[in-house]
Amino acid sequence: MKKKGQLIVISGFSGAGKGTVVKSLVEKYGYSLSISATTRAPRPGEVDGKDYYFKTEAEFRNLIDYNGLIEWAQYVDNYYGTPRKFVEDELAAGRDVILEIEVQGATIIKKQYPDADLIFITTKDVETLKERLAGRGSETQEQVEKRIRRAVEEAEMIDKYDYIVINDDLNTCIDTVHSVILGGKCKKERNEDFLKDLQENFSRIREV
Amino acid sequence: MKKKGQLIVISGFSGAGKGTVVKSLVEKYGYSLSISATTRAPRPGEVDGKDYYFKTEAEFRNLIDYNGLIEWAQYVDNYYGTPRKFVEDELAAGRDVILEIEVQGATIIKKQYPDADLIFITTKDVETLKERLAGRGSETQEQVEKRIRRAVEEAEMIDKYDYIVINDDLNTCIDTVHSVILGGKCKKERNEDFLKDLQENFSRIREV
Repeated sequence: MKKKGQLIVISGFSGAGKGTVVKSLVEKYGYSLSISATTRAPRPGEVDGKDYYFKTEAEFRNLIDYNGLIEWAQYVDNYYGTPRKFVEDELAAGRDVILEIEVQGATIIKKQYPDADLIFITTKDVETLKERLAGRGSETQEQVEKRIRRAVEEAEMIDKYDYIVINDDLNTCIDTVHSVILGGKCKKERNEDFLKDLQENFSRIREV
Repeated sequence: MKKKGQLIVISGFSGAGKGTVVKSLVEKYGYSLSISATTRAPRPGEVDGKDYYFKTEAEFRNLIDYNGLIEWAQYVDNYYGTPRKFVEDELAAGRDVILEIEVQGATIIKKQYPDADLIFITTKDVETLKERLAGRGSETQEQVEKRIRRAVEEAEMIDKYDYIVINDDLNTCIDTVHSVILGGKCKKERNEDFLKDLQENFSRIREV
């Protein structure tokens, strides 16, 4: 029997670098990445099926009605959700799947998949987060403040996560998240079938 | 406040390669290695303070009486034990300490240090273990059989461990054990102090 893949949820403050971490994990270690569905309009350069699955509101509603999303949420006027089929097919094929998802969605995933690893990426403090957001230079002061206010709310929710990884040095952070996933796969609870086989294998020796 | 080091217990079947794995972890990643005390006589080439602390039975008894060992056991006519001071000093200094220890000792350690990571190194099956033991060429058929009988008993105890790592390819096994340790350090329960500080740090922003 093929071992199922591991479901990994990665969240983090906007500006903590989780997008880069996730992208690198996929490129460097070959994880499968779930692509969200959304009703928001594509931004310049965004590709359907790569950045998001862009849906009309009717299409999105239909996905909800047919249990096609494992979680979904509404932000401002747009819907966002995680398509079920991709995730379940990949896990069944033994591939590890990463969901890059916000805090509310993560807790919904954990209820449905209690064995998922929930990983939160953070800067070492709020000052570092502010510096990074300001350093982007691509956002207004108002946008930066909005992201910080959001981060303050998210900070209260980190207790829901299984692991906390500090992104101080990007490469260290990427390899640490990979270690969290790789090491977690060795947990005894995740190898009960192997252990049972091994013990039977050894006990047959006893009888010889 | 300096974060305490992580206590790691590594066990495994004789012939599964745990000695080589432990040696490589120390050399490649700089883990601290606890050296056992024993009353058995040094074998040719063994160095006091490197392979073991060689003790007389009176000295060993004295260590036991003064609570100087965190676990000890008697095998055949000899005593073996783990000196307390080194382990506790290293952990307090924030260094991760590996104990290479057999199954009974591992369960005793877990009772005293519930946060220790217990890692069991195994071959993928009993046939591979037999081949490796026979392949050493340094042991009699009788010795090989004795080790296998011991492994059969140990196999029943693997349930006591937190992690199971298969040693199929040596380098993969070494890096996987390192991932288990590194990833484990990111567990939320092991970062409560950091998380509390971070949340306070963020909540002060809210008040501004």
